[in-house]
Amino acid sequence: MQTILILGGGKSSSYLIEYLAASCADKTRNLILADLDLNQAKAKLKGLPGTSARSLDIQNEQERKTLIQEADLVVSMLPAFMHPIVAKDCLELGKHFFSASYESAEMKKMKAEIESKGLFFLNECGLDPGIDHMSAMKIIDEARSKGEEILSFKSYCGGLLAPMSEDNPWKYKFTWNPRNVVLAGQGTAVYQEKGDLKIVPYHQVFKRIEPVSFDGIGDFEGYPNRDSLSYKKVYGLDSISTLLRGTLRRAGFSKAWDVFVQLGMTDDTINMELPENSSLRQFLNSFLPYHESLSIEEKLADFIPDLDFPTFEKIQWLGFFGTRKLPKSSGTAASILQSILEEDWALDSNDKDMIVMKHFFEIKGVNHTKSISSSLVCFGEDSLHTAMAKTVGLPLAIAVDLFLKKEIELKGLHIPVIPEIYVPILTKLEEQGIHFKETEKLSAN
Amino acid sequence: MQTILILGGGKSSSYLIEYLAASCADKTRNLILADLDLNQAKAKLKGLPGTSARSLDIQNEQERKTLIQEADLVVSMLPAFMHPIVAKDCLELGKHFFSASYESAEMKKMKAEIESKGLFFLNECGLDPGIDHMSAMKIIDEARSKGEEILSFKSYCGGLLAPMSEDNPWKYKFTWNPRNVVLAGQGTAVYQEKGDLKIVPYHQVFKRIEPVSFDGIGDFEGYPNRDSLSYKKVYGLDSISTLLRGTLRRAGFSKAWDVFVQLGMTDDTINMELPENSSLRQFLNSFLPYHESLSIEEKLADFIPDLDFPTFEKIQWLGFFGTRKLPKSSGTAASILQSILEEDWALDSNDKDMIVMKHFFEIKGVNHTKSISSSLVCFGEDSLHTAMAKTVGLPLAIAVDLFLKKEIELKGLHIPVIPEIYVPILTKLEEQGIHFKETEKLSAN
Repeated sequence: MQTILILGGGKSSSYLIEYLAASCADKTRNLILADLDLNQAKAKLKGLPGTSARSLDIQNEQERKTLIQEADLVVSMLPAFMHPIVAKDCLELGKHFFSASYESAEMKKMKAEIESKGLFFLNECGLDPGIDHMSAMKIIDEARSKGEEILSFKSYCGGLLAPMSEDNPWKYKFTWNPRNVVLAGQGTAVYQEKGDLKIVPYHQVFKRIEPVSFDGIGDFEGYPNRDSLSYKKVYGLDSISTLLRGTLRRAGFSKAWDVFVQLGMTDDTINMELPENSSLRQFLNSFLPYHESLSIEEKLADFIPDLDFPTFEKIQWLGFFGTRKLPKSSGTAASILQSILEEDWALDSNDKDMIVMKHFFEIKGVNHTKSISSSLVCFGEDSLHTAMAKTVGLPLAIAVDLFLKKEIELKGLHIPVIPEIYVPILTKLEEQGIHFKETEKLSAN
Repeated sequence: MQTILILGGGKSSSYLIEYLAASCADKTRNLILADLDLNQAKAKLKGLPGTSARSLDIQNEQERKTLIQEADLVVSMLPAFMHPIVAKDCLELGKHFFSASYESAEMKKMKAEIESKGLFFLNECGLDPGIDHMSAMKIIDEARSKGEEILSFKSYCGGLLAPMSEDNPWKYKFTWNPRNVVLAGQGTAVYQEKGDLKIVPYHQVFKRIEPVSFDGIGDFEGYPNRDSLSYKKVYGLDSISTLLRGTLRRAGFSKAWDVFVQLGMTDDTINMELPENSSLRQFLNSFLPYHESLSIEEKLADFIPDLDFPTFEKIQWLGFFGTRKLPKSSGTAASILQSILEEDWALDSNDKDMIVMKHFFEIKGVNHTKSISSSLVCFGEDSLHTAMAKTVGLPLAIAVDLFLKKEIELKGLHIPVIPEIYVPILTKLEEQGIHFKETEKLSAN
C-alpha cells in the first residue's frame, strides 16, 4: 500500500487531487489531503475510495511531521516559501517530495543529502515552470540528437481569459493572484537577441512587445519576463544566439497597461494618503504634472503622447474619467490600483480561463534552417476546473503516478528537463488533452 | 582649554578645518584632526598653533574612544553610516556632537539620553541639509511672526560647475561623489502642488522639470528630489498648499540625462558581462530593441522620439557613436556608465565648482500676497577650496565656534531650524561671503 500526502487543497489543486484520487481506485494506494480547512479538503475528495481528509496547521511542526511520517511521498501545493520547510521534513523522514514551484537555493543545498538517502525530489513540474520545460526540452533534445544547432529560442506563456469571456475592453480578468498581475514585470528584464545582450528596465517592458498569434483564437503580444538568460544553463543553451522568455497578454493590453506604468501607478514603495471618498480621477491626477487650466483628460494626453483611442477606452472603462470613487484611499499606488481592478476584473461565475504557451525555435541543420513553432492552448471548464489548475496540477499528478508505478525510476533532485521524466509525462498529458501543435518551416542555409 | 576633535579630514573638510584651526590662535582652544591618513591630516593643519594631527582607524573602538575622551566636542566628517557609532561614544563619554548629515532614526533614539546628560547634538548643519534649513526658516519664521500664511514653498539646490569651467556640452563635471550623481533621482519622488499630492516615478523625474534662473549666471532646471513632504513636519508647514524640493542642473542637462534613464543605463541591479574591448556603441546597443538593418543612431532616434540636436550632441560628445572603448566591460549598467563619465566629467586642476540654491515662497499677508525668491550663488576658489567644501564646512565650523563661545546655549538633539541656531550662523556666514539675495513682489489678494 502506497500513501500519497497532498499538502494544500486550494484553488489550483482540483485536477491534481482528482487525478490522484482516481488512481487510488484499484486499492494499491491511498491519498491523504491535508489543509487548514478540513471541510474544503473533504469537499475536494468527495468521499472517494482510498482518500481521507485531514486538518493541518502547517506551522505546527509536530503535527506536520506526524502526518508526513504516514506518507511515502509528499506533494506540496503550499505557498512557495513553505516548500523548503516541508522538503527538510521529507529529507529527515525519508519521503519523496514533489512541487510545481521553482527549485530554490535552499532546495539546491539539499541535493547531496537527497541523493545519499536515495530519495526523489521533483520541482518545477507544473505549467510555467513545468510544461514549458518539458515541451521545450523535447524539441531541443531531438535537434541535438541529430547534431543540429539551436540558434534561437523564444518562449511565451500567459494565463488569460477564454475568448468567450473576453467581455471588457481589456479582454482581461484576474484568473490568478491580482497583486502579482499589478506588479508583473517589475525589476529589470534581460534577454539575448542575435548574440547581443538586451537589458529592459521596468518602464520599457510593456513597450518591448512582440506579436504572437494562435490559430483560431487570434492575436496576442509577449513582453520580456525577468532573466531569460538563466535558461541558458537550465536547458544547456550556452552558445545560443537569441534567447527570450516572455509573458502573453491580449494584443493591445500592454499599451494600455503601460499608461499605468508610465504614470507611476504601479509603484509599491510610497504610501499615499488621499482624502476619503476621492475619485479615480483624483487618484489619476496625483501622477500628472500640475496645470492651471487643462483637464485630467488633456493632461493625460500630453503625458502619453501616443495615447490612442483603444488605450483611452480601456482606461475610461475602468472609470478614471468619471465620478467613480476609489475602493480605498490609502496605501501604495499599486495597492489602490489593485483595489480598483479587483472590482472590474473579477471573474463571473460562468467565466472561463485559458492558458496559452508558444515556443519559437530556429534550428540549423546540415542543409536547412528549421523554424519550428510549438503551441499549446488549454481552456478552463468551469470556475473550479480552470485551465490554470489543469496545466499546473496534471503534470505534477502524472509525475507522482508514474513515479509510484516505477515508470520514472530516478533518484536525486530534479526538474523535468530530462527525457526520463518529460517523455512519459508529455505522453500522459496528451491523453488528458494537453498537447502541443507543432509547425515547421525549412529554409536553405 | 577647550578641545575640538574633527573625525575625517577628506576633501570637504578644508574650510571647516581652517576656520576652527584659526579659532585656536588665541590659545583658549585646541583642535585635533584625526584621519586614517596621518599625512593628509598633517597637510590640512599646516602645523598651525593649537592643532595636532592623529592617525585613527575609526573601526578600532578602543582607539576611537580614547581619542573622543580627550575632546569636549566631536565633529564627524565621516561617511554617514559612521555617525551613529561616534554619536553613541559621545553619549557614553559625555561629549557634544556635530555633523552635516541627516538626523538618522538611530540618532533620534538617543534624544532623551542626550537631554538628560545635558549634551548638545547638532546634525544637518552643512549645505543641504543645513544652509537650506536656515535660509528657509528665516523667511518662514518672519512671515509667521507677522501672522502671514505660507501658501507655497519650492526650494532648489545644486552642486555644479562654475560657468568658467563649463567647457563641455553637458556643462557638468563631477564636483562630488560620481556614484551618487549616476544614481540621482532613483526611487519615487513625492511632492504637493496646489493642494494635490504628486507622485513621480524615477523614469519621469528628469521630465518633471521646472526652469530656475539666477541673475548673471543664467538658466537652470530643477527636478523633484525624493520626499518633499517630509519637510512639512520639519518646517511646521502642515497646511501648506505647494511644497517641492528639487535638485538643480544646467538647462538642457535633464533631457539628455533622461535618455540614459529611459534606456535603463542607470540600472544598478543587473550585472552585465560584455565582451572585452566592447565599445560605448555596443553598450548603448544593449538597451535598444533589436532591428535587422537600422543603425544605432537610427534605433536611438526611434527609441527617444523627441531626441533633439542638443541632446544628441551631448551623447555624441561622450563617444557613444564612435569607436571609443568602454573603460570597463562588466558590472551594473550604472557602474559602467559611471566609468565612462569619470573619464569625461573629471575636473581639471583649474576647474572651479559652484553651489546654487534658490527658494521660492508665496506668502499671504493681510492685503497682499508676496512672492519671495531667495537665492545663493557660491563659487569655488580652487580644487581644495571648493564651493561644496565651503558651504558644507563653514556652517558646521561656525556652529562649533558659537557653541564653544556660548553664543548658542542649547542642550539636546537639534537641527538648525530654530532662530537660536540659525540667526547667529547666517550672520557669520554673511561675513564669509555666503549670503542670500532676496527679491519680493506683491500682488493684491
